[in-house]
Amino acid sequence: MSSFNPLPEAPRRVRIFDSTLSQGELVPGISFSTEAKVEIATNLDALGVDVIEAGFPAASEGERKAVSEVVRAVKRISRAGFSAEICALARAKKIDIELALEGEVDCVHVFMPASKLHLEKRLHLSEEEAMNQLVDSISLAKSNGATVEFTAEDASRSDPEFLWKICRKAEEAGADRINLTDTVGILTPEGAARMVKEVKPHITKPLSVTFYNDLGMATANSISAVMAGADQVHVSVNGLGPKAGMAPLEQVAVALKEIHMESNIQLNLLPEVSELVERHSGLPMYEIAPIVGPLTYTYEAGVHVHALSIDPATYELVPPEKVGRKRRFLVGKLSGRTAVVEALRSMGYPVEEGKVEEILARVKNLADKGVRITDGVFRSIVEEVLGMSKRKWFEVEEWMVVTGSGITPTAQVKAKIGDKEIRAASFGVGPVDALANTIRSLEGVPDFKLRKFRLRAISSGTSAIGEVLIRVLGPKGEMEASGTSPDILEASLKALEDSINRIKS
Amino acid sequence: MSSFNPLPEAPRRVRIFDSTLSQGELVPGISFSTEAKVEIATNLDALGVDVIEAGFPAASEGERKAVSEVVRAVKRISRAGFSAEICALARAKKIDIELALEGEVDCVHVFMPASKLHLEKRLHLSEEEAMNQLVDSISLAKSNGATVEFTAEDASRSDPEFLWKICRKAEEAGADRINLTDTVGILTPEGAARMVKEVKPHITKPLSVTFYNDLGMATANSISAVMAGADQVHVSVNGLGPKAGMAPLEQVAVALKEIHMESNIQLNLLPEVSELVERHSGLPMYEIAPIVGPLTYTYEAGVHVHALSIDPATYELVPPEKVGRKRRFLVGKLSGRTAVVEALRSMGYPVEEGKVEEILARVKNLADKGVRITDGVFRSIVEEVLGMSKRKWFEVEEWMVVTGSGITPTAQVKAKIGDKEIRAASFGVGPVDALANTIRSLEGVPDFKLRKFRLRAISSGTSAIGEVLIRVLGPKGEMEASGTSPDILEASLKALEDSINRIKS
Repeated sequence: MSSFNPLPEAPRRVRIFDSTLSQGELVPGISFSTEAKVEIATNLDALGVDVIEAGFPAASEGERKAVSEVVRAVKRISRAGFSAEICALARAKKIDIELALEGEVDCVHVFMPASKLHLEKRLHLSEEEAMNQLVDSISLAKSNGATVEFTAEDASRSDPEFLWKICRKAEEAGADRINLTDTVGILTPEGAARMVKEVKPHITKPLSVTFYNDLGMATANSISAVMAGADQVHVSVNGLGPKAGMAPLEQVAVALKEIHMESNIQLNLLPEVSELVERHSGLPMYEIAPIVGPLTYTYEAGVHVHALSIDPATYELVPPEKVGRKRRFLVGKLSGRTAVVEALRSMGYPVEEGKVEEILARVKNLADKGVRITDGVFRSIVEEVLGMSKRKWFEVEEWMVVTGSGITPTAQVKAKIGDKEIRAASFGVGPVDALANTIRSLEGVPDFKLRKFRLRAISSGTSAIGEVLIRVLGPKGEMEASGTSPDILEASLKALEDSINRIKS
Repeated sequence: MSSFNPLPEAPRRVRIFDSTLSQGELVPGISFSTEAKVEIATNLDALGVDVIEAGFPAASEGERKAVSEVVRAVKRISRAGFSAEICALARAKKIDIELALEGEVDCVHVFMPASKLHLEKRLHLSEEEAMNQLVDSISLAKSNGATVEFTAEDASRSDPEFLWKICRKAEEAGADRINLTDTVGILTPEGAARMVKEVKPHITKPLSVTFYNDLGMATANSISAVMAGADQVHVSVNGLGPKAGMAPLEQVAVALKEIHMESNIQLNLLPEVSELVERHSGLPMYEIAPIVGPLTYTYEAGVHVHALSIDPATYELVPPEKVGRKRRFLVGKLSGRTAVVEALRSMGYPVEEGKVEEILARVKNLADKGVRITDGVFRSIVEEVLGMSKRKWFEVEEWMVVTGSGITPTAQVKAKIGDKEIRAASFGVGPVDALANTIRSLEGVPDFKLRKFRLRAISSGTSAIGEVLIRVLGPKGEMEASGTSPDILEASLKALEDSINRIKS
């Protein structure tokens, strides 16, 4: 609790309008396959969003198909309880509305600029013409039984009087919700509150807001707008959207809770949904992104750890378990002897006299050279110092990969399980695939699927060390594994070897 | 301009206190080598920050060495005009202050919690004891001629009256600046403004603020605090810091400008400094991060492009040239014929009758499968459709790589420059290094250095297509190149081939 934060007099339930599917495809180069859209939509529904914007039917034939597919999939699932409203974007044009209605969506989301800049320069419309076009479009959608949300684009740069007038006009034409968009992300939190307060008294239907993240203030603006009276916020998972994107669902949902507002979002499902969208979009999250960043609940065993062990509230606002995360500790440059002992214990390694100091010295030595001490790097230091490589269940003794023009990538691996020597060779679409296929074909190795493959540099400079992080689906579920080496294929092989040992442990 | 944003009555100059070197190392696993620290510090100075926090001398011997090295390097450079103040962190303890002073920094940054939670649970100090310890520490630093900044840790959860009292006490003891820290990132923008307004009337020295990003509101809180009267903001490049990090320098600097406040920051240098820190920290930026994200000023030739061509202000708040960026366009799923023609022209490809439609069809086909249409993907589609591969200056005709246990990674390449066939074989620390060395040793190929290597997945699924992005330093400076393939080594080879052709073009 902070005595500085003003809190609402009465908590309200705030609606969450999710635009991941529509705005996500405005990230240049990114598109979702229809299967991906359906998978994301069903997960968003389970997460608890109120509205899912499925796409912009007027954009293309493919888009129309995708929107219909999402609607159809949702209806199939709805027997099992799909509850989000499905929405389609449409300009305030007859053809757009008709195409949106064809997809049998629940809601048509009609947009029209409210700023002179957009109306005159972009659309060559007078304010009067814009209002008439808007009224016709909303009436058309309403007469076909759809819910209608009206968005005043570029609301933040509009004339305040025209803004509330066009909003009221939309409401009179039948719009069920009014949304104000800060198209260029110009608003400060105070400006966001003022915009809401300007419009709210003139309308009776729920008021919604959309903030773009050009200056990194989209989340704060959303919270400020809600405090000022907004009833709904447009968001997207991981903040996907054009330019710097829009307010991230995960941040807004958690921040709403912190200001004692309610939403339907199941906070513990946020990391899962974030990762699903990360995978389908191909945009890796920033490692320290709020709530969902892979490093966000990891601590370096040093300054903060003592306080966290007394009371996590000293440094943590949101306990990890509330948002589906786990607290983790890494040994690093700032860590001491105790931290190493604790890490060894928690990872199941023996604590051997004299070895702790050596492990710590190696960690500091690498760190001083600028090498990133990841979980995997720490484990390989430990296993080297403890001479543990011999104790692995599955151990690669020899391997080779060949690839090139006119050569199918081919690998050969010789390994040991216990005392038994096993060998195999296989091929794949690339050298990593060839290695994975080879290991999979070794006798006694459990079956697995490679679900994620990521390479990151953990040292800078010319012969940088790479770390390969993989996620593998084995008989007991998914698990992560890693390997490091200046050779990306060796790093991949180590990660695969690591994963097999984890599957068996 | 937005008529909703309140603006300051008179613009002030806001000081920027940079914590990249100190807070960056609190990202778990990350440390900067001394050379990296010096390089970052000199770049921060050129960027225009007012204070550079070099480290926390009490942490370790290595940290003390690094702080001294930074100070020494800065002093060497200072003849050429280094002007930032160098600062070291210290708890309010005699030993910490002494160790900080040993490093001959300009400023000692003394911190002490202001909340009961931290004082009692973490430090077992009464408010009285904390104040006395603080006064002793500040006096010691001042009597040694240092500038002193006092930070009230966890200020956001402190009792407001105790907060201003400890701040005034610090000022009376000689502190030159007072900083309030929102340690757990709990404040809303309104709460941030209230905290500033609570303390400001009780002190005369400049008031500073530090916001952590736990809820994604650090930038907005900083701006809100400045509007409420704060004179300085603590930031870090790329927002580096523990947990979800702190307010990103690049966002705060640009947002200050937008609210008509001044700072010393050279906005056009932001992308360079961001990338330097990205490289040394090994934390890749989120691709759509505000201001510095690689995709942030890239548009998909579709909806937005028409408006941007009429007036960029319709969708862009900050013109790219103001922040050292360039506007780029990508052809994607939402693009039409005109967009393809424009892209071909801007990239220097011929516009051939009938081919435009084929290019567009292939783009949409790949996009519908969920493949990310990057610059490199688009170019390879174009070159395939136009049958252009034969027209390259440097063309790889045959290649092979072998790596494995007990084998030094080895590559062989046969290529053509004009009509001349060339061949070479070489080795390296990994297969990519071997390929680069081989290409470098081919007769007629200009010398180059590999400066950046990044792999990203551009399709999801089991046999994902990878894209390798490299930056190469050639005789004419740095340039980016890319290659795609399900085989990471083939993708690397294509990127290298691409870079050689770019160096020569």
